[in-house]
Amino acid sequence: MNYDNKIRVGITHGDINGVGYEVILKAFEDPTMLEFCTPVIYGSSKAASYHRKTLNLQTAFTTISNISEATHNRLYLIEVSNDDLKVEIGQPSAEAGESALAALERAIKDMKEGSIDVLVTAPINKHTIQNAEFHFPGHTEYLEERLGDGKKSLMILMKDSLRVALVTTHIPITKVASSITKELIKEKAKIFAKTLNSDFGKGRPRIAILSLNPHAGDDGLLGNEEGEIITPAIKELVTEGIQAFGPYPADGFFGSDKYTHFDGILAMYHDQGLAPFKAIAMEEGIDYTAGLPIVRTSPAHGTAYDIAGKGIASAESFRQAIYAGIDIFRTRKSNDQAHQNPLRKQFYDRRDDSDKLKLDEE
Amino acid sequence: MNYDNKIRVGITHGDINGVGYEVILKAFEDPTMLEFCTPVIYGSSKAASYHRKTLNLQTAFTTISNISEATHNRLYLIEVSNDDLKVEIGQPSAEAGESALAALERAIKDMKEGSIDVLVTAPINKHTIQNAEFHFPGHTEYLEERLGDGKKSLMILMKDSLRVALVTTHIPITKVASSITKELIKEKAKIFAKTLNSDFGKGRPRIAILSLNPHAGDDGLLGNEEGEIITPAIKELVTEGIQAFGPYPADGFFGSDKYTHFDGILAMYHDQGLAPFKAIAMEEGIDYTAGLPIVRTSPAHGTAYDIAGKGIASAESFRQAIYAGIDIFRTRKSNDQAHQNPLRKQFYDRRDDSDKLKLDEE
Repeated sequence: MNYDNKIRVGITHGDINGVGYEVILKAFEDPTMLEFCTPVIYGSSKAASYHRKTLNLQTAFTTISNISEATHNRLYLIEVSNDDLKVEIGQPSAEAGESALAALERAIKDMKEGSIDVLVTAPINKHTIQNAEFHFPGHTEYLEERLGDGKKSLMILMKDSLRVALVTTHIPITKVASSITKELIKEKAKIFAKTLNSDFGKGRPRIAILSLNPHAGDDGLLGNEEGEIITPAIKELVTEGIQAFGPYPADGFFGSDKYTHFDGILAMYHDQGLAPFKAIAMEEGIDYTAGLPIVRTSPAHGTAYDIAGKGIASAESFRQAIYAGIDIFRTRKSNDQAHQNPLRKQFYDRRDDSDKLKLDEE
Repeated sequence: MNYDNKIRVGITHGDINGVGYEVILKAFEDPTMLEFCTPVIYGSSKAASYHRKTLNLQTAFTTISNISEATHNRLYLIEVSNDDLKVEIGQPSAEAGESALAALERAIKDMKEGSIDVLVTAPINKHTIQNAEFHFPGHTEYLEERLGDGKKSLMILMKDSLRVALVTTHIPITKVASSITKELIKEKAKIFAKTLNSDFGKGRPRIAILSLNPHAGDDGLLGNEEGEIITPAIKELVTEGIQAFGPYPADGFFGSDKYTHFDGILAMYHDQGLAPFKAIAMEEGIDYTAGLPIVRTSPAHGTAYDIAGKGIASAESFRQAIYAGIDIFRTRKSNDQAHQNPLRKQFYDRRDDSDKLKLDEE
């Protein structure tokens, strides 16, 4: 790999009827963005131009037919749909779903070939994108299958040093308690610990684990899962060398500065983790799909049909998703290099009285 | 009632082994607090002195034997325990539980006789206070029975104009979905609307109702309660003249400025409402027990045994609880007066062609 090359960021356009193009184009209005990455939109020049004109944005892009042409300080666009594609602001449409999927398929192909380093996905409509190729609740599960190489993913919501991951994600509240097992908590905590180490450079990451029930079950008065499942999981994690703490009741945890004392927070279910996270992060939160061989980030918001086409969407989350993707890619690469070329271990051989420093044998 | 008299605030000392006395004494260190209320602690001069001395606080108090003696600009204390009472910092103890209950019983007696206007409760230990008289999950249920006059209470968490109430409170997560009924949502929303009107002066309060499942059930993919229970409840509330909106997914709701556009937010369960509320309010949130004939507030924190006796507890929530109690008492009183002495209604009689303004008959 040529280290002088800028990091290539592949951007899938998502749903063309939502705020996707608005936040993409706004994020690259500032030309300094091009100084530290080469961005390539997988999308539609027709849809991009439509939003650019409607919203009166100045961001220019260059249409190319192949990723190998993305060589200069420009915002590129690789065409994934034909000219018939029609934008219908704020409306779900089948062709928007097809185009969103085409963008993902093309970006995945280039990513598999090593032509892009980081994937940043604009929001999709989970209903219109479904077809024979895409039969998943969202990006995360789809990318896990297509780029996961058998690895399990973990969704992390991030803002600065606040990182929240979930044990269970998109399931009804009736299914939450029965889905929480000791094994699942341990699996998620281990991916989290490994990610915090390899992708965020935390030597021995500290992970806070939230309780399932209010007041951590209040000694059994409000539920038994803490005593029977969560606390045993934490104990076993600690035995296995992971710095896991808790279980902490979610409200007190986020209502004090306690949450700032951990590298990662593992919540038991969607709203428990995401409602306080978003209350703190507001428009600057992003999603990171950890645990996979590739780096993928996305803004924490959805298609936002209700404000699409109005010019009022904030590009801050999307911009932060690009920054975070680049940071993670760099950290992971330098971490990989450190492990590929370790210093030879130095040690004193106890069987040898000579006090002479030995070097590990190659 | 004599309007020149200051509002009398009864303060129950709660658990003497927690941070209760620390926050009480810190709140009254500033003598300006005495300019707009007459505070009376229901507690133990021995325990108060112990904390005062240990923490090196300057707050002075005057021990009295009866509420009728509370007449000057002082912090008063009515003795509810005998001299044997022993403080054991950070430890649960049976005698602390008895003393916490004795304080509540005495304060309730004075409140029933109209001798105190507002009740502010310091945190109790819910385990040690249990006995034949007190067999409730917390203050709220106990006060509902003792002072409720048959009315149902509603716990509201507040900070400034942010007010969050809960449909279900202290139950395990496995019981949440089955406890959510259309009737319960409507009952809670109605108490909320009435309270926002009478106690906070909101003419036609706007109430946001959160969804139960992630993404408001995502059109049934993640649960059916939104379509089957919550949306019908909202529709019926609107028909009955209540400005209810939703259901809103909790994460997006608190992650945007949407939550600032409502007078009240009704969450479905404990962590969904309280985790984001406390993340926003931090140490300044308070509890208000709405729906009862009396006014009772409390700090949003608990006994905090882990930091008891260290002098590091923040009194901000306790101070805000006093302010809020006074504000609510005043708003409610002026609202009551308005309804007791309504202007006579003016109307034109349609049956009368005279165009003459009529007055309502007395």
